[in-house]
Amino acid sequence: MATQNRAIRTRRAILEAAATVFSEHGYAAAKVADILELAEVTKGALYFHFDSKEELARAVIDAQAADAPPRAAQALRTQEFVDLGMVFAHRLTHSVLLRGSLRLTGESGECELNRPSPYRDWTRQGTALLEEAAGQGELLPGTDPAETAGLVVASYAGVHMMARALDELHDLERRMSALYRHVMPGVAVPRVLAALDMAPGRGARVLAAAAGG
Amino acid sequence: MATQNRAIRTRRAILEAAATVFSEHGYAAAKVADILELAEVTKGALYFHFDSKEELARAVIDAQAADAPPRAAQALRTQEFVDLGMVFAHRLTHSVLLRGSLRLTGESGECELNRPSPYRDWTRQGTALLEEAAGQGELLPGTDPAETAGLVVASYAGVHMMARALDELHDLERRMSALYRHVMPGVAVPRVLAALDMAPGRGARVLAAAAGG
Repeated sequence: MATQNRAIRTRRAILEAAATVFSEHGYAAAKVADILELAEVTKGALYFHFDSKEELARAVIDAQAADAPPRAAQALRTQEFVDLGMVFAHRLTHSVLLRGSLRLTGESGECELNRPSPYRDWTRQGTALLEEAAGQGELLPGTDPAETAGLVVASYAGVHMMARALDELHDLERRMSALYRHVMPGVAVPRVLAALDMAPGRGARVLAAAAGG
Repeated sequence: MATQNRAIRTRRAILEAAATVFSEHGYAAAKVADILELAEVTKGALYFHFDSKEELARAVIDAQAADAPPRAAQALRTQEFVDLGMVFAHRLTHSVLLRGSLRLTGESGECELNRPSPYRDWTRQGTALLEEAAGQGELLPGTDPAETAGLVVASYAGVHMMARALDELHDLERRMSALYRHVMPGVAVPRVLAALDMAPGRGARVLAAAAGG
């Protein structure tokens, strides 16, 4: 049992080291030697857990997906819409597995935003939540869920790009909080607006509540 | 005189053709033969005006700068803040010289947004306008000009990237209008908000007024 626990810890340490190296250098330029050094494990230990660099990359992507939190239902659908972004910003700042995985799947490379699919997926999710919010009377009249969701996704991408370009990724949650504080007054009715949590620590609070529940 | 006018028209036709080819292929891959075909001029005519591809590229950048409109003063500084983006969006959609110039100066390549300088320049301009706006009582209490300007610049970059990724650059003015319509209610006092022109045709109206005045 102690041996098994140690094996699990070693595997996790290798995965996190691999995610760090993939996230910084990309798949092709990542060196197994750097992963070994960062994880503080021997080559033998690494190849006991993973057959190849390719398998290691796939394991990073799978582990990130396994770590992804389930949608945490809230009374206000508008809060869930905000949480989509705040939780992602928190995870992007704190989870090296997520950053490594995004880089590996080509969604966090130099030019990730020139591909349409992530925009469409996020916009669809956001639109669905805002349509439910509108149905519950949470939105101001005249609000167009698809327009607002598309705008927030585009802005999010820009905020993320700018934070990376200015080397201020650690500031992502504060910047995302500013985005929602600017956008939501034009979208939500006052009763909803007053109840929304859009503060920088929101992502951590949602994840802690989900883990505790 | 007629000859001179024809020379000016020919020079302009070559510049616009060059801007189109540079904007689509970048400097290195741009072929002089494609520029000749698009401009419908002979090689002799092109080399009468421009010594080399390099000189042609410099001339595109210079012509774009000469075309750039001066800042059009408005009674409301908040309107000038909105106009920064609406005029740029209009020009980006309609001016091949601007698109060619941005591509040549590396600000519209695949990865333009990974460089900090355009963000900083635009944010500085926006912050200065919003600080003047705050001084004139145009903004809601608690508004942070630097935060709002930074957010709008980041969002603008994201909106532009998303419009390109989805191949809907023609929709840029409508998307930028949506950005301002979402953000300004949380920034401007109602009296100012009611007077702001944030509609998609705003860029064209500002340029027409400047040309007429």
